[in-house]
Amino acid sequence: MAEGVRDRMIAGAVRLLAQQGLQATSFAEVLQLTGAPRGSIYHHFPGGKDQLVAAAVEAAGRHALTVLDGLAGESPERVTEAFLGLWRLLLERSGNTTGCAVLAVTVATRDDDLLARAGEVFRAWRTRLTALLDEGGLPGAEAFATTLIAATEGAVVLARAERSTAPFDAVAEYLLSQVRVATHA
Amino acid sequence: MAEGVRDRMIAGAVRLLAQQGLQATSFAEVLQLTGAPRGSIYHHFPGGKDQLVAAAVEAAGRHALTVLDGLAGESPERVTEAFLGLWRLLLERSGNTTGCAVLAVTVATRDDDLLARAGEVFRAWRTRLTALLDEGGLPGAEAFATTLIAATEGAVVLARAERSTAPFDAVAEYLLSQVRVATHA
Repeated sequence: MAEGVRDRMIAGAVRLLAQQGLQATSFAEVLQLTGAPRGSIYHHFPGGKDQLVAAAVEAAGRHALTVLDGLAGESPERVTEAFLGLWRLLLERSGNTTGCAVLAVTVATRDDDLLARAGEVFRAWRTRLTALLDEGGLPGAEAFATTLIAATEGAVVLARAERSTAPFDAVAEYLLSQVRVATHA
Repeated sequence: MAEGVRDRMIAGAVRLLAQQGLQATSFAEVLQLTGAPRGSIYHHFPGGKDQLVAAAVEAAGRHALTVLDGLAGESPERVTEAFLGLWRLLLERSGNTTGCAVLAVTVATRDDDLLARAGEVFRAWRTRLTALLDEGGLPGAEAFATTLIAATEGAVVLARAERSTAPFDAVAEYLLSQVRVATHA
């Protein structure tokens, strides 16, 4: 039960970070969003906001890894589609108003530990994607995996700024066409 | 002279936004960074911080457009290199601690007007890059231009999180290899 409150708070922090960035994400808003009791702040996060944000960065990282774990044995095209699909769904559900919690923390933190955690998430995604694409027979899997992550993150930002999925869809279609060419060559 | 103060404050805001995000960028820090007198805030920016940030977003947008303007008649490979080079230089000069002011505003603002200005910048970059790449003979110039912007923006975030230009360089090399293949096909 107590674990449930902690997890709800972390999920709430992920959502708020993705929607409105690091500084605008406060314990007060997390409590309001999740209905968690006020006392749960220092019970679950004695290290304060940085500890909650660190847990949110890790949770966001794990979420994508869990999806990738389910893609073992799939083709590079399918893996690329699924990674893009994670972010497309986020844009669609939010009317292009939300994005990536890990990116939001990266561009707004001055805390070395938080930045290092964000770096670990991106590295873990790259490692996992590279392995999946490589196993599926994609030449140059590591360069493509890094580009896929970077382009997806950037495309989400363009879609939010333009309040339209059009730039995201253009990037997704470009990347998928590259995978098709590379795997059928 | 008064115009000089205003421009210095805008340039200072661009730097701070790029380094530490929207909420951490304050008039106090802009004054400290630029040495502008306190009275210049409401003289030059009677609309407050949002007005300064809007001017900074526009200035950051114009800066890249000015560089692109100098590339008329160049090959798609050279145009791509130059756009990537803008961001590579930023990472290099800052030890991978800074990024894009327009992205920083996009992911942290809840102000529709600021978001619209960020969207205009990304659209202007895409339009200009598409025209340059198309004139240089790149097939599918618009899809590539959108991907180039998205991937560059995302690659800067990865480089900051990982405190290394390695992910940026991997993305840059991938994109350049795609341009070479597409133009020599």
